[in-house]
Amino acid sequence: MDMHQLTRQLQVKNDSKIVLLVADGLGGLPQKPGGQTELETAKTPNLDALAKQGVCGGSIPVKPGISPGSGPGHLGLFGYDPLQYLIGRGALEATGIGFALGENDVAIRANFCTIDSTGNITDRRAGRIPTEESAPLAIKLREVSIPGVEVFVEPVKEHRFVVVLRGSGLGGNVADTDPQATGVPPLAPRATNPDSEKTAEVAAEFIKQAKEILAGQPKANCCTLRGVSAKPNLPSYEEVYGLRACAIAVYPMYKGLARLVGMDIVGQAQTLDEQMAVLEENWAKYDFFFIHFKYTDSTGEDGNFDAKVKRTEEVDGCVPRIMALKPDVFICTGDHSTPSMLASHSWHPVPTLLVAEHCRTDSCESFGEQECLRGGLGQFEAKYLMPLALSNAGRLNKFGA
Amino acid sequence: MDMHQLTRQLQVKNDSKIVLLVADGLGGLPQKPGGQTELETAKTPNLDALAKQGVCGGSIPVKPGISPGSGPGHLGLFGYDPLQYLIGRGALEATGIGFALGENDVAIRANFCTIDSTGNITDRRAGRIPTEESAPLAIKLREVSIPGVEVFVEPVKEHRFVVVLRGSGLGGNVADTDPQATGVPPLAPRATNPDSEKTAEVAAEFIKQAKEILAGQPKANCCTLRGVSAKPNLPSYEEVYGLRACAIAVYPMYKGLARLVGMDIVGQAQTLDEQMAVLEENWAKYDFFFIHFKYTDSTGEDGNFDAKVKRTEEVDGCVPRIMALKPDVFICTGDHSTPSMLASHSWHPVPTLLVAEHCRTDSCESFGEQECLRGGLGQFEAKYLMPLALSNAGRLNKFGA
Repeated sequence: MDMHQLTRQLQVKNDSKIVLLVADGLGGLPQKPGGQTELETAKTPNLDALAKQGVCGGSIPVKPGISPGSGPGHLGLFGYDPLQYLIGRGALEATGIGFALGENDVAIRANFCTIDSTGNITDRRAGRIPTEESAPLAIKLREVSIPGVEVFVEPVKEHRFVVVLRGSGLGGNVADTDPQATGVPPLAPRATNPDSEKTAEVAAEFIKQAKEILAGQPKANCCTLRGVSAKPNLPSYEEVYGLRACAIAVYPMYKGLARLVGMDIVGQAQTLDEQMAVLEENWAKYDFFFIHFKYTDSTGEDGNFDAKVKRTEEVDGCVPRIMALKPDVFICTGDHSTPSMLASHSWHPVPTLLVAEHCRTDSCESFGEQECLRGGLGQFEAKYLMPLALSNAGRLNKFGA
Repeated sequence: MDMHQLTRQLQVKNDSKIVLLVADGLGGLPQKPGGQTELETAKTPNLDALAKQGVCGGSIPVKPGISPGSGPGHLGLFGYDPLQYLIGRGALEATGIGFALGENDVAIRANFCTIDSTGNITDRRAGRIPTEESAPLAIKLREVSIPGVEVFVEPVKEHRFVVVLRGSGLGGNVADTDPQATGVPPLAPRATNPDSEKTAEVAAEFIKQAKEILAGQPKANCCTLRGVSAKPNLPSYEEVYGLRACAIAVYPMYKGLARLVGMDIVGQAQTLDEQMAVLEENWAKYDFFFIHFKYTDSTGEDGNFDAKVKRTEEVDGCVPRIMALKPDVFICTGDHSTPSMLASHSWHPVPTLLVAEHCRTDSCESFGEQECLRGGLGQFEAKYLMPLALSNAGRLNKFGA
């Protein structure tokens, strides 16, 4: 019996509202020993007040010591065990550019490369061709025509683009064609599972036609395919939790991840203020609201401590508008830590705050890494946050008699 | 390698004594923000003194956010993963009324119902027939006679009774016969697994004869069967831990749960004082003593904060008699929280105290929810309590060289 089997069996519907505010990469590190983290440095009077009222703790995104990408980071917060539900690289890339994958789709990361007259690769990244040159070429590849299969090609950046093959009987198990070396030809697409023989054939045909279309190009005259993957088979929020859920996000990646678990993507917000307006407009229509804020992560990735502090204060600033709606459960956390000192995602537990009427408050006086160590949630794997949210919302029956 | 494989392999026998004092539903919530829980309000000088001397923490009965019933709550405390060992509803019901299930038994929850002359159900609960009327009818059903199968019928309450079928080749996989609707006849018993074809046949014969016996009754002239289940196959304390264990409980449910893991049920105590006397009398005969106190849960279920406080003080009062026996390991905890404010079982971690010579004391000054957050046991799943008890009793060897 796993957690989703439990929540399927125990779920109860009621009128409660749950808000999950994700400040991407929220957790941090002090600039020097004995100092304060970005979150501790930031003036966050609203979150501090809620920390006194609610219960805090540290969310471990995957397992202790594991630094997650956005995919596993968010799956954990959504309550999907990130070690059980793996999103293939192609599917994640397609999701990241906002491509809505369907049930019969296979997504592939593709690289432009350069081959010589004998067919051997001379540059695996086509001289890191600039996006201005590569994007029109990717779009030109939409001319590829394969009977019985719909082919989508989407530019990404520089030498990278995405191919989605849509058709019946296409498995997601085909090995990468990039030989990871120059002086040799690209590998032929090869099924690693009998369910993907057709995918391998279609991929080979795609490459053949792509070479014809790209013939004569000085840099990008061929391509390699990597991370071939079917749409991940994630059960929906509606099914596993009984929640009508929506996502209020700015960036395609987070909209895409939310879409994979069956959330509706609402609004066209570009700023946190606009996101709050979308939240207010949709308050009556949903049970669960995932609000994503990107810039605590991107400033951390930039190694810019002060900018991350400022962005954290921006998150705090939106809290009163959320609380004015009187959610039954309000959660603020991150999908992982992104300490400016590391300028990268990290493994450190993420400060987490849950506010609900019966949450059993602890003695935390403010919202920050050190205070969360004293929190009543303790340190917990992110995947348990949803069951906690559901219980606090009165949406889970007792297990067993 | 799971925990039971470990404890089987590493167990050591010695003369140590372990006492597990379970105050059912021990954990609670404050009556108002900033207030104290039932346990924190209660005067518990004995447990407070032990909290200074021992190590505290918060026990998560099943997983974060999951509120367990008595079955999974106790299985966790006994060290049996409650998500792995599921007790069927019929088996739990039989256990709850003190029926000692055997290896060849299938237990069934049965409901009296009313059918009309065409055989359609007009009332699924036989007009909620009072126990005074239904109990004699249940006992009358003991007249059912099926060759090769022993049939037990036990009254429960109102329209409910328990049927146990004893015989070889009886599987526990038969679907409920209650159609969950009126105006239709009861469903025929149907095996959901080939191992239970015989059970379905026997159940059909039971219903046929029951209808004959009940013919002419104004309300209870038929019955439906639900929660058909074989005796759960739980390894014994003796086998997994090397412990001679006994249970000192008042209520049938807890005696029954202890019996399922192979504990002896000792004494006929009706009060905590009498339970202490039974403990003293049996001290030499066993290694492990499970003492169950019900009223911290029942007062919580009643939503009676003050009564729960008083019952908690009663638990504290018995502690000196336990400690006078000088157990090597003393544990006080609950199978789950039952906050008076919720008047129901809840998901909140349960205050837990373990006292042993080498337990590595923490800085907890008293026994309560907030203090336990600072405890040396941290927050842990209940199923790990038994390995901790065994280690503290010197009953587990080193794992690996």
